[in-house]
Amino acid sequence: MVPSRQHPIAERLMPRFSGEDTFMKLPRYRSENPTSIIVAGAPFDGGTTYRPGARMGPKALRHASWGLYPYHRQRAFFLTERTSVSDAGDLFVNPMSVENSLESIVNALDALPIGTRVLLLGGDHSISLAPLRVIRQKSGPLALIHFDAHTDMWDEFWGSRYNHATVIRRSVDEQLIDPAHSIQIGIRGSLDNSSEDHYGEELGITQISTDHWMDRGTSWVLQQIHSRVGRRPAYISCDIDVVDPAYAPGTGTPEAGGPTSYMVLSVLRGLHCHVLGADVVELAPDLDHTGNSALFAASLAYELLFCMAADDDSGILNKEMT
Amino acid sequence: MVPSRQHPIAERLMPRFSGEDTFMKLPRYRSENPTSIIVAGAPFDGGTTYRPGARMGPKALRHASWGLYPYHRQRAFFLTERTSVSDAGDLFVNPMSVENSLESIVNALDALPIGTRVLLLGGDHSISLAPLRVIRQKSGPLALIHFDAHTDMWDEFWGSRYNHATVIRRSVDEQLIDPAHSIQIGIRGSLDNSSEDHYGEELGITQISTDHWMDRGTSWVLQQIHSRVGRRPAYISCDIDVVDPAYAPGTGTPEAGGPTSYMVLSVLRGLHCHVLGADVVELAPDLDHTGNSALFAASLAYELLFCMAADDDSGILNKEMT
Amino acid sequence: MVPSRQHPIAERLMPRFSGEDTFMKLPRYRSENPTSIIVAGAPFDGGTTYRPGARMGPKALRHASWGLYPYHRQRAFFLTERTSVSDAGDLFVNPMSVENSLESIVNALDALPIGTRVLLLGGDHSISLAPLRVIRQKSGPLALIHFDAHTDMWDEFWGSRYNHATVIRRSVDEQLIDPAHSIQIGIRGSLDNSSEDHYGEELGITQISTDHWMDRGTSWVLQQIHSRVGRRPAYISCDIDVVDPAYAPGTGTPEAGGPTSYMVLSVLRGLHCHVLGADVVELAPDLDHTGNSALFAASLAYELLFCMAADDDSGILNKEMT
Amino acid sequence: MVPSRQHPIAERLMPRFSGEDTFMKLPRYRSENPTSIIVAGAPFDGGTTYRPGARMGPKALRHASWGLYPYHRQRAFFLTERTSVSDAGDLFVNPMSVENSLESIVNALDALPIGTRVLLLGGDHSISLAPLRVIRQKSGPLALIHFDAHTDMWDEFWGSRYNHATVIRRSVDEQLIDPAHSIQIGIRGSLDNSSEDHYGEELGITQISTDHWMDRGTSWVLQQIHSRVGRRPAYISCDIDVVDPAYAPGTGTPEAGGPTSYMVLSVLRGLHCHVLGADVVELAPDLDHTGNSALFAASLAYELLFCMAADDDSGILNKEMT
Amino acid sequence: MVPSRQHPIAERLMPRFSGEDTFMKLPRYRSENPTSIIVAGAPFDGGTTYRPGARMGPKALRHASWGLYPYHRQRAFFLTERTSVSDAGDLFVNPMSVENSLESIVNALDALPIGTRVLLLGGDHSISLAPLRVIRQKSGPLALIHFDAHTDMWDEFWGSRYNHATVIRRSVDEQLIDPAHSIQIGIRGSLDNSSEDHYGEELGITQISTDHWMDRGTSWVLQQIHSRVGRRPAYISCDIDVVDPAYAPGTGTPEAGGPTSYMVLSVLRGLHCHVLGADVVELAPDLDHTGNSALFAASLAYELLFCMAADDDSGILNKEMT
Amino acid sequence: MVPSRQHPIAERLMPRFSGEDTFMKLPRYRSENPTSIIVAGAPFDGGTTYRPGARMGPKALRHASWGLYPYHRQRAFFLTERTSVSDAGDLFVNPMSVENSLESIVNALDALPIGTRVLLLGGDHSISLAPLRVIRQKSGPLALIHFDAHTDMWDEFWGSRYNHATVIRRSVDEQLIDPAHSIQIGIRGSLDNSSEDHYGEELGITQISTDHWMDRGTSWVLQQIHSRVGRRPAYISCDIDVVDPAYAPGTGTPEAGGPTSYMVLSVLRGLHCHVLGADVVELAPDLDHTGNSALFAASLAYELLFCMAADDDSGILNKEMT
Repeated sequence: MVPSRQHPIAERLMPRFSGEDTFMKLPRYRSENPTSIIVAGAPFDGGTTYRPGARMGPKALRHASWGLYPYHRQRAFFLTERTSVSDAGDLFVNPMSVENSLESIVNALDALPIGTRVLLLGGDHSISLAPLRVIRQKSGPLALIHFDAHTDMWDEFWGSRYNHATVIRRSVDEQLIDPAHSIQIGIRGSLDNSSEDHYGEELGITQISTDHWMDRGTSWVLQQIHSRVGRRPAYISCDIDVVDPAYAPGTGTPEAGGPTSYMVLSVLRGLHCHVLGADVVELAPDLDHTGNSALFAASLAYELLFCMAADDDSGILNKEMT
Repeated sequence: MVPSRQHPIAERLMPRFSGEDTFMKLPRYRSENPTSIIVAGAPFDGGTTYRPGARMGPKALRHASWGLYPYHRQRAFFLTERTSVSDAGDLFVNPMSVENSLESIVNALDALPIGTRVLLLGGDHSISLAPLRVIRQKSGPLALIHFDAHTDMWDEFWGSRYNHATVIRRSVDEQLIDPAHSIQIGIRGSLDNSSEDHYGEELGITQISTDHWMDRGTSWVLQQIHSRVGRRPAYISCDIDVVDPAYAPGTGTPEAGGPTSYMVLSVLRGLHCHVLGADVVELAPDLDHTGNSALFAASLAYELLFCMAADDDSGILNKEMT
Repeated sequence: MVPSRQHPIAERLMPRFSGEDTFMKLPRYRSENPTSIIVAGAPFDGGTTYRPGARMGPKALRHASWGLYPYHRQRAFFLTERTSVSDAGDLFVNPMSVENSLESIVNALDALPIGTRVLLLGGDHSISLAPLRVIRQKSGPLALIHFDAHTDMWDEFWGSRYNHATVIRRSVDEQLIDPAHSIQIGIRGSLDNSSEDHYGEELGITQISTDHWMDRGTSWVLQQIHSRVGRRPAYISCDIDVVDPAYAPGTGTPEAGGPTSYMVLSVLRGLHCHVLGADVVELAPDLDHTGNSALFAASLAYELLFCMAADDDSGILNKEMT
Repeated sequence: MVPSRQHPIAERLMPRFSGEDTFMKLPRYRSENPTSIIVAGAPFDGGTTYRPGARMGPKALRHASWGLYPYHRQRAFFLTERTSVSDAGDLFVNPMSVENSLESIVNALDALPIGTRVLLLGGDHSISLAPLRVIRQKSGPLALIHFDAHTDMWDEFWGSRYNHATVIRRSVDEQLIDPAHSIQIGIRGSLDNSSEDHYGEELGITQISTDHWMDRGTSWVLQQIHSRVGRRPAYISCDIDVVDPAYAPGTGTPEAGGPTSYMVLSVLRGLHCHVLGADVVELAPDLDHTGNSALFAASLAYELLFCMAADDDSGILNKEMT
Repeated sequence: MVPSRQHPIAERLMPRFSGEDTFMKLPRYRSENPTSIIVAGAPFDGGTTYRPGARMGPKALRHASWGLYPYHRQRAFFLTERTSVSDAGDLFVNPMSVENSLESIVNALDALPIGTRVLLLGGDHSISLAPLRVIRQKSGPLALIHFDAHTDMWDEFWGSRYNHATVIRRSVDEQLIDPAHSIQIGIRGSLDNSSEDHYGEELGITQISTDHWMDRGTSWVLQQIHSRVGRRPAYISCDIDVVDPAYAPGTGTPEAGGPTSYMVLSVLRGLHCHVLGADVVELAPDLDHTGNSALFAASLAYELLFCMAADDDSGILNKEMT
Repeated sequence: MVPSRQHPIAERLMPRFSGEDTFMKLPRYRSENPTSIIVAGAPFDGGTTYRPGARMGPKALRHASWGLYPYHRQRAFFLTERTSVSDAGDLFVNPMSVENSLESIVNALDALPIGTRVLLLGGDHSISLAPLRVIRQKSGPLALIHFDAHTDMWDEFWGSRYNHATVIRRSVDEQLIDPAHSIQIGIRGSLDNSSEDHYGEELGITQISTDHWMDRGTSWVLQQIHSRVGRRPAYISCDIDVVDPAYAPGTGTPEAGGPTSYMVLSVLRGLHCHVLGADVVELAPDLDHTGNSALFAASLAYELLFCMAADDDSGILNKEMT
């Protein structure tokens, strides 16, 4: 079945302060007319260790996306001329159970046609496990491109093994990602435990600290990603706290002294990988008094869609992942 | 054609911080399956004389409605067991032209099946003219029940004859309402011109000031409405600035010293009129830091739906209006 | 010299979101053309014991006043047909010295033509001493009508005898007010010291607690004021924390469980006293996220102007105070 | 062992914008010097079905309490002359597990000397189960005085039986409270299910709706409580959403059209029951832009302390509960 | 006639939290004593396609300017020693008609003495047409230096040809500017239509994207401007959304990933052009919770004044424009 | 006496949204068990010339510090393995008297064991005089490392010689600092008086403007500090307005166009001086809607502690200062 190629509703027909709440005003997902890529919300924040509120994230991110137009200046193509995309709405989550929530998301994603790529809008970072589990089943362990101030490699928190601070360690434990071809970008801040620094090293995962990024620049970061990830099946996870809180205060565990939004967006704009899934997590709108965090999160989601779409053009569309 | 009776999506299936953005999570309007009542947004604020922002109102009102359940305690019935309701989304408006916007809303409402009642979510008060024009065509001049701090009876403002300060005078001029059976409730505040006070009197419209309401109580207000309006075809227009700004700061022209939200909601809960249309206007979410204004506006809309639904039960459903 | 009778700039000529920052868009004070009443700002908050910020009060109060029109519904007259009013701007204060600031305000007020009545916009409550000192010189001890949650009768605070918590005791000490004909309205809240309750009693000042007001109603309060104050030379001091913080959160020492804004405004609207001066104090705009506190403060100032203006009509205009 | 009688740190020694963060600047609890009453925080919000954030409640409530003085105007006594009180700080909770959190709170309370009364600062409403379980062990089923917009009598939510919507039903199931001598005050709002209304009736619990309160007044409410509860061992649970959101917007599930803060505080000020424990729950400070919600919550806690202290004076102090 | 040289009121005489609301506390414009440069407000936002509120801009910008002192560190001169400046207040605009508003501004500017330079404070970007029309009459087509995230070269929006998205195209159409000597700086973001990118090229206008600026630096940008504009009569238009929203969230259509405020201010500080007029537009204070946007806008206005003043020193003062 | 080596309470035992309000959850200071370094609050803002509110600073800074862990990534050691630190709470200040407040702070610091280093949390900048006076007594004039947008070298303000604008000049006058070995970093903005620029030069103090920093980079700044200060006894004073207001809007006198938080933190991370005392001042939390300012201020305090601790390791611990 050939996916439909429906377009966002133009601002001329529906001003951006009105209309339905899909990402970029893309069409809603309909199972009888599937798309190559879907956007979906995962409004779960029961895995948060400090300030909650990411359950309100998908709604705010979508709202902020209404000012993003379908033609990408740097990539020089229209989103929906290159691929088909729809918004599948919010998936059911249970704020009181990370297990139920992950299971519910996995089931929803499993029900999609084979080969559908997903852009998941969190929610706290624990939700990333769900798409990783689903995609890994088909593609094998993924190359992870992970933007974050934190490594998220705690082993447990208050006895809980599944939460936003342990998600990357669990991804390794469950063999969802291949550390040797994975990379974490933007890491900074103080540590509870010096072993945190060494754990990533032992795993063989590449960590690019904010210091490195500042010293060596964005082109160097792109080289590191491309040389490490190449054309392997990849997953991109973007915790919005990667950026300095001046750019995204609306997040649960902000970390001062981060890169600018320009630096983060520029890496995504320069990326040419084989991206099978992606997420944007940790947007907590009630802490986002200016709306900047939602706009930044929406801009990340926009770039991730174009990353996936650019790849679609290479003939991968509608094939099974391998 | 028998309207469908679809129900709001239960919180158990979709937590109220997630899901699609229809009012109360009611189903979306589909022309092939019309409903007795529709909710629609009219995000126009080009008729504002002081602080703009009501164009953002429908979105925020719907979001705030997600905590409102379908069983009404005082009226003791389920909304969708008594009538059918759907959300038709936002109607096109042009923020730079009140004429275009009114015309667009009129056209959209005219396209609905005969007898459909509308609950319009503003937008500034100028949008009320559109449903009044549409309903009046079929029912004759309406009995207006108007909640507001202001009479909205200016003749013009900076040369403009159609804006939120002139809407009631225009309704009289266009013979959309019948002053003799209309009533304005909650009027208060200072005046630019002493003739404003007399104009309503000349028209024969009943004005219940906040002072009267405070002195004589809510039961007396209800008596006044019922004796004045009776079972005539009626329209209810609720400007959220009727209430004290402590209850709804997110509005363009707040007026200190108003009634409480309980007083306003109690009048609506006690109302038994033949309501063919209604609106909630002047919610400006960017001025609503606590969300209280949106919650109050959504509670008004909820009461208005039940007003209309209560009436539906009396056998009016699906008949033409007369 | 006959005061000029200039009017506020009409909204039709200058929308209320624009124009110069005088109270109600009244003309600026010019010494060559004095007015019967002047409005002046006293942006001092160095006498604050808890949250500062009242130095920003006059600006915000004036801004909020731009939606107040010159015709008073209940009093049924135009402000500037009954009296002449102008805005003298902000008087110099030194935020680091209450003594300098009081002296500066006294000097400025002393320089006005004899008989000019002043409406002072605070600033914290310590600024009230300045107009009381100036008016008392000419009129003898004043009957004080004091709206406040607090009695402001501490003797000192951290060794300071002049601050917002001691202002009424100082007024008694300096014989600026006559306790036997003074009244405090809205008193409530917890006490540091049980003697606070007894001090007012010893002085013979009448105290109407919030409890009394709630129990006996606004008409009773008005009777108490009129019987106590009569036609003596009076001064009205309004601390905006008299009202429940729901109505005015933007103040330094809010006290839960207060009267509504309607109750306070209604007392002022019913007042018929011989008011030689007045103030509105303790508006702290940076704590006023909704703008409600500024609007309430402006509405108080509006009522105070009409109190004074109503009296002007009785033939007192342009005479010396006695 | 005779409890110590330590007093709050006076504002004269430590301005209320400074110092340690105990409730009312009371001394910290020390096991070697126990007090008759303790205040403790329970910063858990993992049982929230809509907007989270109550985990931040205890901190904000304490901060807001610094302007509350130890002498109670209506009750006419000093808190620490009547009883001894200390602040035991925050008890450990696990935001990801209601079971762990309740167990942790129970253990902490069980470790207190027999007869210690507790004022628990939430957190969401699910935390009330912990003190009820502890006190019930010694006193038998309690008479519950419950202020809330909601009955909190759902049976489960998304499969979870322990959360803020089920807490009262669980209290009945676990026989922690005696429905026949319990009372719910302030109930209002729409219902998911008409059976909610009947369940309380079946249990024999008294429900005073906001409508009843508004119609019959505060004295009538007090009569209802006193006749129902009498001098039985009682527990008071205050969900801050009992009040209209104008007074306390900073809460997870606000309900428009509620009573004023004055009405709620007046009931507590008039209460003369044998209160063995109490709580204030559902303060979500990140939604409380004005600080009013925290101030209201602190004022509730203040009244609850005086309720318990008033009783202490009747000779109950330092005896075991029976 | 020699313009007067009046100075800002010193902070020592009037603290910056008090006094009249002129820009930098400069004197008000008086027609009998004109100045070389005037500052004026144009509080119109009826040309906004997304979030309104720029009508509140001039007031907030002036308020924020009170901390800007008259000596410029980098340019090393005192503003009012080099030129004369006054604040002409807000010009009349009609929020419901862009035509009326432009006409009103044009009339006001036309009434100024020949050679007066204007710094206009918006308002949305549509207001720039007015000063361009006035200046162009005397100087011929202007070299435009345009700071903005957007090119503002749409042809129409919802049928409206005059609004903030079309203003630059209209300036070209009306031959107000000379594209060959004009330059747009800071352009970025997604496009509705790929032809937008080409239109500027066709016109021959230079566009410096944010990417170019980031890559090549501020000195290179200055070279581009100087080589393109030279000493031709120039106009500078600053849309505050040129900067990243971290620096100015209070604007209607923010665009993530922009330059820093330092980068923008540095270009203006290095500019040596023959500037006959300038504006700062799109400040929407109700979206500016931190006040940063107003401070940035005021800092832009400050730099623009010094740009014009620096030029005045070169002997141009008081001559007619040519 | 060997200072104890107590550690912060781990997040595992007390989630960071709960627990006592010490900096980083360090132990409280106890005189019977002193520590090498103490943190103390100085909540005074009576020396503020523009927006007050810094009296609320210490509380907010501590709250924000709860997410800072004890292991420093760049310095690669645990804070409390290198030194001992405790939090001495807030010192008494009198908001109405800078003299009383300085005296009170001096007395409190003088009472500490000889050799104790202090990290003072302001409050406005005038509080820096107190620790400078105390340390200078023992160490002689200090090398000052001063981060600020402003030189704070006014001679007086409204007749007051001790306030936040004069603090550095007073430090020179009182010979507390040695200008020849002192350095000011981040200076920028407009000037009231051109002599301000020259005064520092005359004193021989090094001033690194924001322009210099931007041009030459952070390594160059570090060289300048190290060459100027060397291993002399040093004091570091950090006014949070050194950073661009995008990073710290919650401050009284923000200055647009500043460095990033990364730049400031990087200088502190690279510093190797002999630091005997330090402060972080001018955090005004009521202006800090996002919490970013408090987080940045806490991050500065964190870096300052590690600066001092790094030095402790060199064998200076527990010796008298010389």
